[in-house]
Amino acid sequence: MSTRRTLHLNTNISGLGRHPAAWRKADNPRAITDLAHFTEIAQTAERGRLDAVFLSDMVALRGHAAGTWQSLEPTVLLTALAGVTQSVGLIGTASTTFNDPYNLARRFASLDHVSAGRIAWNAVTTYDADAAANFSMPAPLDKETRYARAAEFIEVVEKLWDSWEDGALVADRTSGLYADPARVHEIAYEGQFFRVRGPLNVPRSPQGRPVLVQAGGSPTGVALAARHADAVFTSQTTLKSAQAFYREIKAVAAGHGRNPDHLLILPGLYPVIGGTLAEAHQRKAELDALLDRSVELAKFAGTLGLKPTDLELDAPLPYALIDTGTRTDVSHGFIRSTVLLAQGENLTVRDLLDRNPGAHRMIVGTPQTIADDIESWFLQHAADGFNLNADTFPSGLADFVDHVVPILQRKGIFRRDYDGTTLREHYGLPRPPSRYEAEAASLTTSA
Amino acid sequence: MSTRRTLHLNTNISGLGRHPAAWRKADNPRAITDLAHFTEIAQTAERGRLDAVFLSDMVALRGHAAGTWQSLEPTVLLTALAGVTQSVGLIGTASTTFNDPYNLARRFASLDHVSAGRIAWNAVTTYDADAAANFSMPAPLDKETRYARAAEFIEVVEKLWDSWEDGALVADRTSGLYADPARVHEIAYEGQFFRVRGPLNVPRSPQGRPVLVQAGGSPTGVALAARHADAVFTSQTTLKSAQAFYREIKAVAAGHGRNPDHLLILPGLYPVIGGTLAEAHQRKAELDALLDRSVELAKFAGTLGLKPTDLELDAPLPYALIDTGTRTDVSHGFIRSTVLLAQGENLTVRDLLDRNPGAHRMIVGTPQTIADDIESWFLQHAADGFNLNADTFPSGLADFVDHVVPILQRKGIFRRDYDGTTLREHYGLPRPPSRYEAEAASLTTSA
Repeated sequence: MSTRRTLHLNTNISGLGRHPAAWRKADNPRAITDLAHFTEIAQTAERGRLDAVFLSDMVALRGHAAGTWQSLEPTVLLTALAGVTQSVGLIGTASTTFNDPYNLARRFASLDHVSAGRIAWNAVTTYDADAAANFSMPAPLDKETRYARAAEFIEVVEKLWDSWEDGALVADRTSGLYADPARVHEIAYEGQFFRVRGPLNVPRSPQGRPVLVQAGGSPTGVALAARHADAVFTSQTTLKSAQAFYREIKAVAAGHGRNPDHLLILPGLYPVIGGTLAEAHQRKAELDALLDRSVELAKFAGTLGLKPTDLELDAPLPYALIDTGTRTDVSHGFIRSTVLLAQGENLTVRDLLDRNPGAHRMIVGTPQTIADDIESWFLQHAADGFNLNADTFPSGLADFVDHVVPILQRKGIFRRDYDGTTLREHYGLPRPPSRYEAEAASLTTSA
Repeated sequence: MSTRRTLHLNTNISGLGRHPAAWRKADNPRAITDLAHFTEIAQTAERGRLDAVFLSDMVALRGHAAGTWQSLEPTVLLTALAGVTQSVGLIGTASTTFNDPYNLARRFASLDHVSAGRIAWNAVTTYDADAAANFSMPAPLDKETRYARAAEFIEVVEKLWDSWEDGALVADRTSGLYADPARVHEIAYEGQFFRVRGPLNVPRSPQGRPVLVQAGGSPTGVALAARHADAVFTSQTTLKSAQAFYREIKAVAAGHGRNPDHLLILPGLYPVIGGTLAEAHQRKAELDALLDRSVELAKFAGTLGLKPTDLELDAPLPYALIDTGTRTDVSHGFIRSTVLLAQGENLTVRDLLDRNPGAHRMIVGTPQTIADDIESWFLQHAADGFNLNADTFPSGLADFVDHVVPILQRKGIFRRDYDGTTLREHYGLPRPPSRYEAEAASLTTSA
């Protein structure tokens, strides 16, 4: 029985906006290291009753001559934002390829405590030669190794989060017992990549476990997400492909004995908002006019795994040169989505550049047309909600909050106020028990 | 020419107080995960115009049945505290044994931005079997490997912090140049442990580089600290040994061409404060009465690398069994300091337990005797200041701030207000230029 009634909305707050020229319209173009900037954005998201703000990430510097990137480390920035907000969720990206599970489990558990239960970890794998070069790796890990490591990594992190049962921190002044050793568990993990004894040195956090988000576009990613994730960030650009993905991953989750309502499907959405359609197109045209076409072409080629000379502006993509099978990295589904979109609508390279590729599905529209589109995808089970990408900050998000959100509220498909305090509550997800507690209870029952 | 006029004071705020039974006197004994608790402590330190609050750390859980430990991950907790304070410095411990230099450099650079220049990294190496077992290591690294890795780690981190010159973030709206590639440098580090290309993805932070703290008790540690550190945390318990250490490490630093005033020597100090000497001893006795002697004995034995049965309460330490040469870990100097103290004052195991071993030099006294002691060590060049350990929070720190600090201010050896905004300014340390900028300038000069 589905309890699906209202949709969920996050907003990506990385950099200074999703449009590559956003910084050239910004009040403070250097704001990538400015907490005051991110404070304003997070408070705007909270004013709009959004589920969460989200930080994407990359652990290498590239393209910095032409534009902004997520600079401040996500757990640091989200901790700072927890202090200037009360309710909005906080989703941070961290790679299973370049982190250590004990340190990562501890940071997110700590942040769940400090934020009173508002944190999620977006677990990604990283296929990127520039990043590998910053982590003493001669080359990126191959896909199989990367996903095998990710699966182990996530299992270790979840077990560490579970290593403290609720109530294990007794703190009994009279007896002098601080923590009850019977309710604090070694995880004794022995895998191919990790051997971790535990327990974590952080007591169980407000959400039990921080929310786990994954970007599950590839078959391997789908398998991993369907088993572990609470929410999946996707990049479908057509209703039909989104519905197919939605059906598939919910079915796989159900096959694992999970309640499909407890796995939220949240495609990316890139709205460009104007009071009229003409104003919206004008807004986009003004931003596009600030782009250097050759820089954008080179970036686009790089994301597709191609050289700039492989692309011709007024020709279709060189499909034969594009490898959609093995490049399944942070932007895992992007290549497949781009190819699908280009083939489906018979687009040229110029057409694709016009949509700011890499920016998810773009809608240039009025608050009403954008709200109608969101409603349509939600009601037709193509999405449980969306991961928004504002073209520029703060105006792109403020316009959404002030003009699109009220329409969604009037349609009855978005909250008028938070009715819980944790991100799990915003997402309608149960607070999980520790697996070790469940085992202990089950042993008691069967005895 | 020394500019040394006033002393520097940090306070360790880990756990709920330095006394092992502190939690049994706490208003909220579960406060190890409570941001409100740490907020009160940090604001108290700031009210006392202390240079910084400090978080020690360990990445394993041990002794949790009997007492508290630093639970929340230091960079997360310090980020949260940056948001509720304006001036006080923030010092976080992180191990070079169990972290990665790119991630760590980025977190501390991010925190330096978010705190507007108040962050320091206390770089430690970790010799601990429980910690190793959480990081896929069959055994702790041997000393030589640990220090060799630490030296490389610190070099990589400093080069990453330097990889952005000041002003490299141009953000020129007109030309469209965001960051100037000529002022953003790959570090191209190739060592035995790390190969890191860089640059960091965070522009140069307010302090240029976060302050670097080390705990340099062993000969290897001294060598590392004298070359790299801005401040050294030490654990001498006698004036004479502190003076000898002070002279030695300043001389080694000078030998490296450094200004010895730019390397602060900050021994640990554990004051137990009473309005009268009798009240101070009563305060300590009430806390000691809550301890289980056998638990404390076992902890003490473990810290010395011994079995509990190796120790007899009313006998001297079994010096022949104690290895002072190779156990140079996080509590590197502790064993040597303990042996020196016990031999110098002819103490029994019971005498040593009475001083809460592991807690640095203890003074049970009145505000006046404690302030006099601090002044004496400072004026006799045994210390540039101290790293305080309050017996219990909040009262142990509040008593120091309200009763000891005013005496130090009247003596003219401690600030009455902050006269800078960054931790470097509190410590009287210059803001370093990027080494790559210096190279470029020097090339220009010699051309």
